[in-house]
Amino acid sequence: MSKTPHALSPLLTPASVAVIGASSDPDRIGGRVLRFLIEAGFEGKLYPVNRSGAAEIQGLPAFASITDVPGQVDQAIVLTPAAGVEDAIRGSIAKGVKCVLVLTAGFAELGPEGRALQDKLRDMCQTAGVRMVGPNSLGMLNLDNRYFATFSTVLYGLQPRKGRIALATQSGAFGSCAYGMASLRGMGFSQIVATGNEADVDVAECIDFFAQDPGTDVICAALESCRDGQRLRAALLKAAAAGKPVLVMKVGRTELGAAAASTHTGSLAGNDAAFDAVFAECGALRPDSIEQMLDIAYFCAVTGRLPANADMGVVTGSGGIGVLMADHAGESGITMSPLSAAGKQAALELLPFAVAANPLDMTAQVTSVPGGVGRTIEVMLQHGDYGTVMAYLAHSGLAPARFASTLEQLRELRQKYPQKNLALIMLSTPEVDEALAQIGIPCFGDPTRAVAALAGAARIKALRENLYEMAPAGRRGDTPLGDVATEAAAKQALGAAGLPVLREMLCASEDAAAAAARELGFPLVAKIASPDILHKTEIGGVILHLQDEAAVRAAFGTLMQRAKSAMPQARLDGVLLAPMVKGGVETLLGVQVDATFGPMVMFGAGGTAVELHRDVALASAPLTPQRARALVDRVRSSALLKGWRGAKPLDVDAVVQALCALSDYAMGHAQELDSIDVNPLVVMEKGAVCLDAVITRKGQTAAHSAAH
Amino acid sequence: MSKTPHALSPLLTPASVAVIGASSDPDRIGGRVLRFLIEAGFEGKLYPVNRSGAAEIQGLPAFASITDVPGQVDQAIVLTPAAGVEDAIRGSIAKGVKCVLVLTAGFAELGPEGRALQDKLRDMCQTAGVRMVGPNSLGMLNLDNRYFATFSTVLYGLQPRKGRIALATQSGAFGSCAYGMASLRGMGFSQIVATGNEADVDVAECIDFFAQDPGTDVICAALESCRDGQRLRAALLKAAAAGKPVLVMKVGRTELGAAAASTHTGSLAGNDAAFDAVFAECGALRPDSIEQMLDIAYFCAVTGRLPANADMGVVTGSGGIGVLMADHAGESGITMSPLSAAGKQAALELLPFAVAANPLDMTAQVTSVPGGVGRTIEVMLQHGDYGTVMAYLAHSGLAPARFASTLEQLRELRQKYPQKNLALIMLSTPEVDEALAQIGIPCFGDPTRAVAALAGAARIKALRENLYEMAPAGRRGDTPLGDVATEAAAKQALGAAGLPVLREMLCASEDAAAAAARELGFPLVAKIASPDILHKTEIGGVILHLQDEAAVRAAFGTLMQRAKSAMPQARLDGVLLAPMVKGGVETLLGVQVDATFGPMVMFGAGGTAVELHRDVALASAPLTPQRARALVDRVRSSALLKGWRGAKPLDVDAVVQALCALSDYAMGHAQELDSIDVNPLVVMEKGAVCLDAVITRKGQTAAHSAAH
Repeated sequence: MSKTPHALSPLLTPASVAVIGASSDPDRIGGRVLRFLIEAGFEGKLYPVNRSGAAEIQGLPAFASITDVPGQVDQAIVLTPAAGVEDAIRGSIAKGVKCVLVLTAGFAELGPEGRALQDKLRDMCQTAGVRMVGPNSLGMLNLDNRYFATFSTVLYGLQPRKGRIALATQSGAFGSCAYGMASLRGMGFSQIVATGNEADVDVAECIDFFAQDPGTDVICAALESCRDGQRLRAALLKAAAAGKPVLVMKVGRTELGAAAASTHTGSLAGNDAAFDAVFAECGALRPDSIEQMLDIAYFCAVTGRLPANADMGVVTGSGGIGVLMADHAGESGITMSPLSAAGKQAALELLPFAVAANPLDMTAQVTSVPGGVGRTIEVMLQHGDYGTVMAYLAHSGLAPARFASTLEQLRELRQKYPQKNLALIMLSTPEVDEALAQIGIPCFGDPTRAVAALAGAARIKALRENLYEMAPAGRRGDTPLGDVATEAAAKQALGAAGLPVLREMLCASEDAAAAAARELGFPLVAKIASPDILHKTEIGGVILHLQDEAAVRAAFGTLMQRAKSAMPQARLDGVLLAPMVKGGVETLLGVQVDATFGPMVMFGAGGTAVELHRDVALASAPLTPQRARALVDRVRSSALLKGWRGAKPLDVDAVVQALCALSDYAMGHAQELDSIDVNPLVVMEKGAVCLDAVITRKGQTAAHSAAH
Repeated sequence: MSKTPHALSPLLTPASVAVIGASSDPDRIGGRVLRFLIEAGFEGKLYPVNRSGAAEIQGLPAFASITDVPGQVDQAIVLTPAAGVEDAIRGSIAKGVKCVLVLTAGFAELGPEGRALQDKLRDMCQTAGVRMVGPNSLGMLNLDNRYFATFSTVLYGLQPRKGRIALATQSGAFGSCAYGMASLRGMGFSQIVATGNEADVDVAECIDFFAQDPGTDVICAALESCRDGQRLRAALLKAAAAGKPVLVMKVGRTELGAAAASTHTGSLAGNDAAFDAVFAECGALRPDSIEQMLDIAYFCAVTGRLPANADMGVVTGSGGIGVLMADHAGESGITMSPLSAAGKQAALELLPFAVAANPLDMTAQVTSVPGGVGRTIEVMLQHGDYGTVMAYLAHSGLAPARFASTLEQLRELRQKYPQKNLALIMLSTPEVDEALAQIGIPCFGDPTRAVAALAGAARIKALRENLYEMAPAGRRGDTPLGDVATEAAAKQALGAAGLPVLREMLCASEDAAAAAARELGFPLVAKIASPDILHKTEIGGVILHLQDEAAVRAAFGTLMQRAKSAMPQARLDGVLLAPMVKGGVETLLGVQVDATFGPMVMFGAGGTAVELHRDVALASAPLTPQRARALVDRVRSSALLKGWRGAKPLDVDAVVQALCALSDYAMGHAQELDSIDVNPLVVMEKGAVCLDAVITRKGQTAAHSAAH
C-alpha cells in the first residue's frame, strides 16, 4: 500500500537467511529451525552456519561463519548459546545483514548482567543500522513466503495455515498457545512474530507493520509490558485508521496476576488501568481470554468488516436459545431492536405459526416450507437496520449433504445484502465451517460465544467513533512545577491553570484570621495549614460551621494546638479560612503520571462510591472537551450530576472545563509530576469549586487522595 | 440407594413400551422414535401402535390400539397429532401403563385453549395415578437401559455416550443443543429428560430423581420458569445433601432476555433475581453459558469430587500463561496461596532455574530433567494445601506417544494424592483426553476456561457450607395483615413485629402537635400523614430541623396546606411528629413476595448506591441470624457499617435482628402481602431505627421504595 517499504519488511520477507548455530539433528533446537524452514519450502536462500565446520547440514551446504557465505545475506537467525551471540551478531553485521533474529535466551530475563549484555547487542545493531528481534524470541512465521523461523514444537503437530490474521506477542509460549488453539479450529494466519525481550523491535512496531500489510485484515497482540507508550498508541491508531480490528491481550491484570507477573519478569507490569484506557481510546479491544481473542478475530476475519452497528436480529429454531442469546446481548452491549410491523407481516406470511418478533422463532413449521430457513433469514436482513443477523440452526451443520441447499441460499443472501453481517450458531463439521467461511459467514457452536464475538466486534466499531488524538510532539511537559507542597499552593497553582478554586485566605495569627473572616463573610470553614500535614481530618485539623468572629478566633487556637500536639515536628503556616460551600455533589478529579503512558486523568463522583464501587474512569491526557465529557459519562455516579431523582441538573460543563484545565496543567508539568488529587470538586447548579487539592512530585511519597 | 423406588423410576426404566402413532417411515417424527429405540438396542419390549392397522411397523408386530397389545405395558410414548392425544392417553390408562410420555406439541404453548386441553389430560392421568411427561416434550434418553425415546435429529449424527452426568430441561431444543455440544467433545450422560410443558413431571422432580440415582454424579438442568418453588428448593437441597454438583441454567435473565421470553411462552419468566438467590442458597450454580455448564460438569464428573478448597497451585511451562491464569483466578474467587518455603526449596532442587513461586514456572529446563513435569507437579501436590493443582503443558497432548510417560506419572500422582484435584491445560488429541479422564484428570485447551471451570466447582463447594433450611411445612403465611395502609400503621405493625421504629405521634391539630412536641423534645421532624400520599418529599410534605414549639405550629399549617393544594382529593390524617435522628448510616430493608418462591428479603445500604450500583442482595425468608448476616455481608456498601475510614463500627447486630423480624413478619403474612419497604433503617453505633416504611398488599399498586 505505502510505496516506501516498512522498516520491518526485511524482517518478514528476507530473500536470504543464515541460520547461525544450525544443527544436523532436526529435533534439537538448533536443528529444528532449519528443518521447519526446509519442510515449509521457504522461498528464499538458506545458509546453515555452524562453527564445527561441517560441510553440509540437513542436506544444505554449511559454513563455519556467516562471513564465509557467498553473496548477500538479508537476515541472520541466531541460535548459538548465549555466550556466542555477540560473535554471531558481529559477524552478521560484518556480512551486511539487515536484521538479526535472536532466538537464544539468557539475557535481560535473567537479571542485570543479562540486561547489560542485551543492551550491548542492541547498541551494536543500532550503530550498524541493523534491526534486531529478540533475544529470547520464539521466532516468527510468515505464511506468504513460507518463512517459518521458529523452533516451537507446536509445528510438529500443527501445520500453519494461511489466513488474514496477524499475531504479535512478547511471550513465545503465549504465541504457541494461541497459534495452537487457532490451528486446531482451522484458523489461518498471515504473520506471527514473537518479540521476546524486545531489545529493539517491539509489539507496537509489529502492529504498525501489520496495519499497512495488505495480507493482514485483523491484528492480534499480547504483551506483558510496554517500553514506549506513545509508539503503542500511534500503532493502534494507525491500525484503527486502516480499518483493521485490533485485539490486544495484556496479562498481569488483577492484583493476583500482577504479583505473578512481577515474579517472572524483570520488567514492571505497568499500570493496568492505564493500559485499559489507552487500548479503548486507540480503538483496540482487550479480550478476556485467548479463546475470546480468537473468537472475535475469527468473526472479523470471516465477515471481512466490522458490523455497521450494535443491533442484532436473531432468527432461531428454538425459543429457549433465542432467549439465551437475548440475555447475553443485554449483558454485552448488543441491542435487539423489535422487528418492524412490515417484518412481522412478512414473517407471518411465510410462517403463520412463527413468533414474529426479535428473536424470530421459526418453530418447527419452518421444515415444511421450501427454503424456509433462508427465507426467514431474509426477512430479518430485509426489514429493520440490524448490522448483524444471527441464526440459530441447531445441529444442521452436522449433515453436510442436507445442509447444502441452505448453504446455497446463504451464499445468495450474502451477495444480496453485502452491507449486513450474517453469522450462524450451529453444530457443524469442519467442512461446513470452511464452506461458510468462504462465503463470509462465521459459525459458532455455543450461542453465548457467538454473541460475545459479535459484541467484541461491535465494541471496536463503537470505540473508533471517538478516538484519542495524539498530542503534538512539541509538548515536552517540562515546565517547572514550582512550589506546590501545601494545599494553599496547590490550589493556587491549579486556580492559575484555570480550575475553579474557592477564595480562601491564609492567616498566620488569630487577629489576621478575624480580619479575614470579616472580609469573607459567614459561615466559614477553618483548616490547619502546613506543608507537613496531608491528612488534616485525622488530627482534627478541620473545623466547620464557624458562624461569627469569636468562633473563628477560637478555632484558630484550637487548630494550632491540635496540630502541635499531634505532629510536633510539623511546620505550621497558620490557618486557612474559606467560605463554607453548601449543597452540590462531590466529585473527584485526579491525575496519575503513568510511567508508560504519561499523564492519565481520573474522574469519580459521589463520595464513598469511588472507594466502595471503584466507580472511576481513566483517560489519557490531553483531553478534548468531547473526551472529557465521555470520561464523565463513563462514571455511573455521574447520574448524580444529571438531575438525580428529579433534582435540577448540575453544571457538568464546569466539570468538563475543570478536567480539561487539569489535563493541560498535567501535560505541561509531566516531567516533575507524580500525581494530582482534586478532592472534592463540588459541582453546583451553576459552577463548581475545588475545596481541596494535593499535588505530589515524582519521587515524593504519594499523598492519600482523601486528604481534606 | 433408597429401597422404595423413586416415583420417576417407571418413567426412565420401563420394561415394555408402546409407541402410539408409530410410523413405518424412519425419517418422519412418528417413525424416528421407533427407529432410534430399535437402533439403540433398547432392552425392553417395544410395541408400535398405529390406528392404520398395519400388521408390522419397522419389522415389529404392530397394533391398532394400545389396548390390543398382549400383556403388560409400562409406558406409552404418544406421537399422534394433538387431536388424537386424548384418545391415546385414555387407551393407555385403560391398558394400565404407569407413565405416558407425550411428545406431541400444540397445547399450553399455543394459548388458553391448548392449556385447557392440557389440563384435562393432566387431570385424567392424575385420577388414574399415571405420571405424564410433556406434552411438547422432545423425549428422554436413558443410557443405562438404552431407552432412547426421542425424535431429536441430533441423534442422526451423534450417538449418545454413557457417562455420569444427567440433564433435565424444559426446552427440548436447549437439551439438543447441550447434548450436541457435549457429545462433540466426548462427554457422556446417564439420563436426559426434556420436560416440555410440564403438565405433571417438572425439572424439579427430575433433579430429585437424579439426586438419588446411583448412575448420576453431576446434575445439569435448564428452565425458563418454575411452577413450584418449594419443590425446586427441596430437590436442589437433596442433591446438595447427596454431594452431587448441580448446574442450573435459567434463561430470561436480563430485561432484553425477559422481553424475549414473554413473547415466546405463556408462562411468566418469574423474578430472575429470586431464582439467582434460591439457586445459591440451595447450593446450585448458575452458569453463564451452555459451554460453561458443560465445562464445570466435565470438571466435576472427571475429578469425581468438589475441590477441597478454592486454593489453586499452578505449574506452568510458560510464565505468561501462568500470569494469565492468576489474572482469571483473581477475578473468579480462586486464591493462589504462595508456595511454602519447603516447596520452593524442593522446586529449586529439582529445577535450579525455575521461578519457585505460585505459579511455579518450570522454564525450559524441565525438558532436561528426567520425569521433570511429573516431579514438578508433585512438588505442588506435596507442599501447601492446594485443593487443586493445575498444570499448563502447552501442546504436549498432541503427541500421544511422547506424552505416554507423563501420563504414567500423572496416574501415579493421582493415586498417591487422592484428596487433591489435578487438572491440565494442554492442547491434546481426543484419545489423550480420554486417557486422562480415565484417571480422573480433566484437560482444557484454553487456560481461562480451565480456571473458570475450577472456580465454578469451588463455588458450589462454598455455597454448600451455608445452605437454606426449608421452612416447616406448617407455616402457611395466612395471618391477617390488618390495616397497614399508612406510614404510621405500617411502622406500628413492624414495630409490633420486633423492628425498631422511631417513637412518633400522629397529631390531628396544631394544638395537638404543640403538645406532642413538648412531650417528644427537640429537634423534631414533621411529615404529612395521609393514606393517599406515598411520595411525601415530592409535594414538600416533610419539614426537618424543627427547633421549638412555634416552628412546630408553623410546620403543621404549612404541611396541611401543601398537601391540600398538591393533592386536593387526599384524605389527611394530620401531621406525624418524630424526633430527628442525627448521624448513622441509612440502610434499606425490603421484602418482595415472589410468585414462585414466596417472601424474599432484600438488603441494601448507603442511599444512592442502592439505585446507582444495584448494590443490594436478596435472600429467601425465613432468615436465620446466620443467613441474615451473610445477606448483609454480600452488600458491598455494608463496609459503611463496619468501621468505615476509621469510624466506629455500627450496630450490625441490630440490622440482623431487624432482618430476621422482617422475614418472620413476611412469612406470617405471605398470602396477603405483596411487598414491604423499610427505607431507611438508620444504623447507629448502638441500635438502629426505622424512619419510614411502606407495606403493599397483593393487588395494590406497588409503592415506590423511596417513599419518604
